[in-house]
Amino acid sequence: MSAKDKRRRILDAAVQVFSRNGFFNSKVAHVAREAGVADGTIYLYFKNKEDLLIQVFIDTMETALSKQQAALEGITDPVEKLQSFIHVHFDVVKATPNLAEVLTVELRQSSKFMRGSDLRLFGQYLGVIARIIEEGQEIGVFSRLVNPRTGARAVFGALDELQLEWATSDPAQPVSEVCGNLVELLLNGLRAR
Amino acid sequence: MSAKDKRRRILDAAVQVFSRNGFFNSKVAHVAREAGVADGTIYLYFKNKEDLLIQVFIDTMETALSKQQAALEGITDPVEKLQSFIHVHFDVVKATPNLAEVLTVELRQSSKFMRGSDLRLFGQYLGVIARIIEEGQEIGVFSRLVNPRTGARAVFGALDELQLEWATSDPAQPVSEVCGNLVELLLNGLRAR
Repeated sequence: MSAKDKRRRILDAAVQVFSRNGFFNSKVAHVAREAGVADGTIYLYFKNKEDLLIQVFIDTMETALSKQQAALEGITDPVEKLQSFIHVHFDVVKATPNLAEVLTVELRQSSKFMRGSDLRLFGQYLGVIARIIEEGQEIGVFSRLVNPRTGARAVFGALDELQLEWATSDPAQPVSEVCGNLVELLLNGLRAR
Repeated sequence: MSAKDKRRRILDAAVQVFSRNGFFNSKVAHVAREAGVADGTIYLYFKNKEDLLIQVFIDTMETALSKQQAALEGITDPVEKLQSFIHVHFDVVKATPNLAEVLTVELRQSSKFMRGSDLRLFGQYLGVIARIIEEGQEIGVFSRLVNPRTGARAVFGALDELQLEWATSDPAQPVSEVCGNLVELLLNGLRAR
């Protein structure tokens, strides 16, 4: 197994363990057992348990960002761009429900030990939304009454809250319907009139 | 000091300590020191550290719910009701920033040990928003394309995310502006057209 594959396998195991036991109750030894490697092997790739969570976050944000950027490439209309963003966000969440739980539940509590550089990727993710809102304001399809940065956080907050509902309880609606509802609410909310 | 005052003082101290050190790194002894009572006194009122967090949550939700209900009493227009809800939510947050941090950051991670009955109050809070959306749909001012339950979670998610921003970083805009932006975005988002 290549070093890259082994690193990947350890990160996947960390997601399973953190999601099952909670981050604070998890130990590096649990992750090693889940990944089928020796405890020491983990320390070849990661500093400690906190570093595992940070790397899970960084990997996920990098994947989500590149998926978002690839999907946005062919689109020029800011309204369609925001629709695309919401759908791609939920595609990522649906594909990896345990990961969604770790990111919405465990990471939030643990954000205290994240340094500024780790949070930069989250800022970039918000930045993609803010830029779409700005573009829409420039061509007059989105209202200038909403600050793009605040609008981006509101959009992200709505997505994140519904994601939390799936991660922690039986959702009231299927994911595809929720996604359509959010597109309706958030796009209308931003639209200029 | 009455038992009720002492209970209140311990809960306030718990908020300070959890906000400063994080819930998992806090000990009941830290809360006792902060409240200026003996460790044993805390166990007269609360079972353990988890119970302290749950009681902080229950107290806050009860206060927020009764403030929301009092503010809504004189209002009949669902649009004005939702405006009022958003403003009252932020009034509660602004008045107690440490509490906001404990609820958005610490509680989310710890929701695993909360029982169904504790989360009932959160369900009631979401229910107030969902009911406003339903009323608006009944008289035709809000779009029927958004499921009231999903809409309520989206509204709450947007409020909660901005609240998290204040709790963990320097906000990009003053609270009053953010509040106005959210009213604009969320009310327009729900409006029938």
